[in-house]
Amino acid sequence: MRILTGIQASGKPHLGNILGAIMPAVELSKQPGNDSFLFIADLHTLTSLKDGESIRSNTLSIAAAWLAFGFDTEKNYFYRQSKLAAYHTELMWYLNCFTPFPMLANAHSFKDKSDKLSDVNAGLFTYPVLQAADIVLYDAQIIPVGKDQRQHIEMTRDIANSVNKRYNKAIFVLPEARINEEVMTIPGLDGAKMSKSLNNYIDIFLPEKDLLKQIKKIVTDTTPLEEPKNPDNDITFKLYQLMASPAQVAEMRANYEAGGYGYGHAKQALHELMLGYFKEAREKFDYFIAHPEIIEEKLAIGEKKVQPIAEATIARIRAEFKF
Amino acid sequence: MRILTGIQASGKPHLGNILGAIMPAVELSKQPGNDSFLFIADLHTLTSLKDGESIRSNTLSIAAAWLAFGFDTEKNYFYRQSKLAAYHTELMWYLNCFTPFPMLANAHSFKDKSDKLSDVNAGLFTYPVLQAADIVLYDAQIIPVGKDQRQHIEMTRDIANSVNKRYNKAIFVLPEARINEEVMTIPGLDGAKMSKSLNNYIDIFLPEKDLLKQIKKIVTDTTPLEEPKNPDNDITFKLYQLMASPAQVAEMRANYEAGGYGYGHAKQALHELMLGYFKEAREKFDYFIAHPEIIEEKLAIGEKKVQPIAEATIARIRAEFKF
Repeated sequence: MRILTGIQASGKPHLGNILGAIMPAVELSKQPGNDSFLFIADLHTLTSLKDGESIRSNTLSIAAAWLAFGFDTEKNYFYRQSKLAAYHTELMWYLNCFTPFPMLANAHSFKDKSDKLSDVNAGLFTYPVLQAADIVLYDAQIIPVGKDQRQHIEMTRDIANSVNKRYNKAIFVLPEARINEEVMTIPGLDGAKMSKSLNNYIDIFLPEKDLLKQIKKIVTDTTPLEEPKNPDNDITFKLYQLMASPAQVAEMRANYEAGGYGYGHAKQALHELMLGYFKEAREKFDYFIAHPEIIEEKLAIGEKKVQPIAEATIARIRAEFKF
Repeated sequence: MRILTGIQASGKPHLGNILGAIMPAVELSKQPGNDSFLFIADLHTLTSLKDGESIRSNTLSIAAAWLAFGFDTEKNYFYRQSKLAAYHTELMWYLNCFTPFPMLANAHSFKDKSDKLSDVNAGLFTYPVLQAADIVLYDAQIIPVGKDQRQHIEMTRDIANSVNKRYNKAIFVLPEARINEEVMTIPGLDGAKMSKSLNNYIDIFLPEKDLLKQIKKIVTDTTPLEEPKNPDNDITFKLYQLMASPAQVAEMRANYEAGGYGYGHAKQALHELMLGYFKEAREKFDYFIAHPEIIEEKLAIGEKKVQPIAEATIARIRAEFKF
């Protein structure tokens, strides 16, 4: 199956992104018969971020993180959207001409912002069409998404289907959303879902001491050290559980329940656990960040590999227009 | 000055287009110091027309008409937007990200259609942004437009200026609208402004007999042949006046006022006048239509000529994004 995932170039991936998205996607990409198209959606990023230096450094961090977790760029397809901008945007224009205005006006992503229309730019309003182009350009079949993106994949299908119907021909492949209902919700420092915008995230790629400082900010209750503690109400324990082996989890649970074990101890243990769990990824990440030319080379190879696929799709639709 | 004009590939040019737009534009393009960028806006055409055969034949008719009226493709720039689609649409995306939603929602062209939103596609909604890209892509300075397009040129200036301000650099040239207040209104067969949509036009490229048939459909009053007639109320006379010499006009006026001269006579005279006035253009038009490969060649030369200009503009804006 041809699986496609785009990642906004909006920041360095945090623990939530890594456990919830990157690691499962890397696993999926390893399965025989799966081709994963993974791209950095830097054209989309322009709807919110205009600073070139930030886009560049975010791109490198994201690429380094995926590489650090073992995304195989030789088996799969790894590219920046901006390096194929001409294909993505040309196809977007064609799809624009088949997208009813009310479809975009009814998108949740737009409605959520409709109380502050002056902050919405035309890029943001039409981004579901660029997303549709991102998908059909590469004949993608499966789009793993969260529930909030289900509507956009439906829109992609509707738009692509309008074109196919108009010309009575299978010009575009209709993609399917794969929605993981049981997607892991990773708690942030304050217990809310970990996210960049809430600034409650843990950056696993920080130097050891800085990582510990961040972990120490995890919110706890005020149960004194000596007393027994309920692990299931505790954020540190929840995070520990996500990365520890069953034996480690059992031991930690026992520590909590026995008393005489403080949150400070638990945070130290989480820190140690993470340094072990992410040892290889941290080393690889640092290596790639220190060698942006290697990231650049891997992306360039991917961009060369997807280019003929994009070109073929554009040729199919241009043929209908006699362009 | 760098003058830019786009023509929708929506149909064969009629007498109104020719006298009101093509002939004045060709004159302007001949002036020393003027570079005219003339393009067939076939990407825009897709907002309303999806049939490739029609787009293709409209493109050939329009190109043949401009060539027939002596547009000098060696001095100037003559191209199809679709052959540079990647540049136009990529730049459009960038400009989208600098275009506030309310600016598009307040465009007259959109408001006029807002009672039937289901008929409006995203292409139509965002076409002022593609238009802005069409203009700034070639550093155009002067855009000759009708009053109804004044707002769109203002929008182009606003969007381009936002980009220049954001990066504190003259990335884009800000264009100026040149609005001809005294633009000739060419009456159609029924006296209303000649237009394709009203189906009241005269096609000067028809075979002689068919042209006469069309001219005979001009609406007249019922004054009997013998009686004197008021030329200034008569559509045939108005059209005659637009192409005849002052001596011919004076003679025709005398015929009308003397009586004994019928509308049939006047229409015959208009037919003869047009065959003479457009003799060369009609022959050239037929020649080009019979030789689409020559049109194709001239367009291909123009497309090659504008390509480096488009590329340079895209490079300037991509540099800001570090793409």
